[in-house]
Amino acid sequence: MTSWLQIPKASPFSLANIPFGIISSANAPSRVAAIAIGDHALNLSAFASSGGFAQLPAIQPHLGVFSQPTLNAFAALGRPVHRQVREYIQSVLRADTPFPQILKDNESLQKEALLPLSEVTNHLPMQIGDYTDFYAGLNHAYNLGVLLRGPDNALQPNYKHLPVAYHGRASSIVVSGTPIHRPNGQVLSNPTATPKIPTFSPCKRLDIELELAAFVSTPNKMGSPVPVNQAEDHIFGLVLMNDWSARDIQAWEYVPLGPFNAKNFATTITPWVVLIDALEPFRTANLEPANADNLLPYLREKRTDNVFDIPLEFEITNAGGPATTVSRSNAKNLLFSFPQMLAHHTITGCNLNPGDLLGSGTISGAESGTQGSMFEQTAGKNPIKLADGSERIFLEDGDTVVLRGKAGTEGNYVGFGDCSALILPAVKLDL
Amino acid sequence: MTSWLQIPKASPFSLANIPFGIISSANAPSRVAAIAIGDHALNLSAFASSGGFAQLPAIQPHLGVFSQPTLNAFAALGRPVHRQVREYIQSVLRADTPFPQILKDNESLQKEALLPLSEVTNHLPMQIGDYTDFYAGLNHAYNLGVLLRGPDNALQPNYKHLPVAYHGRASSIVVSGTPIHRPNGQVLSNPTATPKIPTFSPCKRLDIELELAAFVSTPNKMGSPVPVNQAEDHIFGLVLMNDWSARDIQAWEYVPLGPFNAKNFATTITPWVVLIDALEPFRTANLEPANADNLLPYLREKRTDNVFDIPLEFEITNAGGPATTVSRSNAKNLLFSFPQMLAHHTITGCNLNPGDLLGSGTISGAESGTQGSMFEQTAGKNPIKLADGSERIFLEDGDTVVLRGKAGTEGNYVGFGDCSALILPAVKLDL
Repeated sequence: MTSWLQIPKASPFSLANIPFGIISSANAPSRVAAIAIGDHALNLSAFASSGGFAQLPAIQPHLGVFSQPTLNAFAALGRPVHRQVREYIQSVLRADTPFPQILKDNESLQKEALLPLSEVTNHLPMQIGDYTDFYAGLNHAYNLGVLLRGPDNALQPNYKHLPVAYHGRASSIVVSGTPIHRPNGQVLSNPTATPKIPTFSPCKRLDIELELAAFVSTPNKMGSPVPVNQAEDHIFGLVLMNDWSARDIQAWEYVPLGPFNAKNFATTITPWVVLIDALEPFRTANLEPANADNLLPYLREKRTDNVFDIPLEFEITNAGGPATTVSRSNAKNLLFSFPQMLAHHTITGCNLNPGDLLGSGTISGAESGTQGSMFEQTAGKNPIKLADGSERIFLEDGDTVVLRGKAGTEGNYVGFGDCSALILPAVKLDL
Repeated sequence: MTSWLQIPKASPFSLANIPFGIISSANAPSRVAAIAIGDHALNLSAFASSGGFAQLPAIQPHLGVFSQPTLNAFAALGRPVHRQVREYIQSVLRADTPFPQILKDNESLQKEALLPLSEVTNHLPMQIGDYTDFYAGLNHAYNLGVLLRGPDNALQPNYKHLPVAYHGRASSIVVSGTPIHRPNGQVLSNPTATPKIPTFSPCKRLDIELELAAFVSTPNKMGSPVPVNQAEDHIFGLVLMNDWSARDIQAWEYVPLGPFNAKNFATTITPWVVLIDALEPFRTANLEPANADNLLPYLREKRTDNVFDIPLEFEITNAGGPATTVSRSNAKNLLFSFPQMLAHHTITGCNLNPGDLLGSGTISGAESGTQGSMFEQTAGKNPIKLADGSERIFLEDGDTVVLRGKAGTEGNYVGFGDCSALILPAVKLDL
């Protein structure tokens, strides 16, 4: 499938993708819906008001959703509508489009609505009501378990029976490109001393966590669990996510109720939501039998190809120096699928709303160099050597971290774009 | 301070209170702001449009906030405005009001705006972006610690250094009166068997947790912590909260990331937000030196009377039978104050928004009969005898639980009203 629009072969936003986001630009400062295609964004508000959707009657009553400052209303229209809109936009952008008059031969609409990505500002794609972070990356859970408890008890007894999760902080989720201040907090300078007396300090063990995250589209009512085999239709699409983690703050605070200040200062996501439909060609079987005999029925999926083969990576750059790819992982390293996470989340009757975000948990491979966090790779003591000759055990001020992920092959990539942030020094407090 | 309006002496909504909420009624089905006074609600939207605020010039530019379906915009106006509005309404309702023409002698406005509480429907007072639940009830943390780890290690090493907390689920917070389905989930039928194999079951250890909760009014920007001595001005007011807990689901799921499905099915709050100003007369010193020498400076408050003396209780009734007061506690049983919780929450730079809710954690006394949960009182095995002769270790279907709390003395109570819910059977699932 080729486009009449020039699309760089390495772009994560090929014609096979068509992810949705929220943009503004100097000429159109209001936030509106858009799709990404190659090096461009197509402003769907401008596209819609100029008759761009003329050949898609089903969407006509809903065109207002593209002029809203979040995708929540569009997401709430449900998966069949997202699918129709994506396929229609593909048909408009195809080299052999049946509708050349819509955009291909319409220079004035191209000028108005087809904007270079370098000239648009991305915003959070959805208003996020609640954010939940799972722990479904099997290798990550194992690696952390080994570091904390040794290999014999690395995985907790519940780990393979349910997708472990905790509620996260929604207000501090920001879009890629937003700088992050190193958090201050309570840490134990000497963890083995007795009694344990904390000190107040900037976090000294600031880490990344490489995750995927799913936005909810279709809500369920309180008291109405979503069956696992219907759960995928409640998902709008996926983004890449960096679940920043202050390991030293977490080590002190997390007993007995889990991470709190270690996570609440920031979470970064990519701005473009990739529909599950775009990821269909990359389905693959789970690492372990996802529907193992001992899995309770409410978590058993009919399909076995319930995760996606998406190469993921993260890199670190300091102060404009050369970038170092620190890790290469893959999205298939999840023990539970997003439908399983969603079914588990709602089995109690918990209600999910459009815009709720479900993080996968850190996605690590099994070998060295495939870990989705620095702690796993360095064990908190063995430095990683960067291309500029410096070493890292955890992140330093001035580091820029970029997560990336794209599936497929050259010219047809389905990817997320950069999930990037610069680490700023801790805020100095006058206490 | 007496009113020209007849107010029952036992009412939690005396003239000394003036709590804010959101109501609708048969004649005025749109949600609007109101205050509670005795057995009445004063519809502030109707009051405002009929010139009720004529003698309060400062609020004139903001009258629209009273016609909104949540109190978020009113809360965001800040504490000085809340204070002015409350004191003005008190002056209008006082027996010796200087403005008798506003309401006392204005029968038509009374008829329109002063509605019997029995004829109004209460709604959630705020749109809740994020909900955080703390664990600041010292006796509760100790009691649970004894049950789980024995008396020598009951409190974790971090407990007295920071207000332990976890992120909670905002979407399933409901207003008093909403029935709650017993959740289904994974539990260990035989916790001591090896290997541990969970079963799927309705929760068998459904419990209540008696808490206070604070609504945030004034936001802080990401990266800008709120100093502890300014934190109280970021709080709109307090409600009573029942943090329903599925103890058996929690016991299996909560390692290592804390409670998730054990809590996400429902949390119940009272509809009327009691301003801190109304609670001023009930300030009291903390249980332990709140500003103990070993407390880090960012948590030290100048004032020592940083908690409130508010008697609290909960009762259980089954199927219209007689009510049994199971427990009598007091809000002063908190180790950390709400300003300390808010300062700790934001010390990393985490941003709070108007409408965010901070739960206190379960508030238990030190003696038998003062525990804020059933698990603490029964130890999971010693039944409580109810007035109808039946016994309870945990809640049964058909039980109605009511939490109550009011400070002060007859005729001048400052209270929250009922925090009530009926327990419905678990939803039957077709798996």
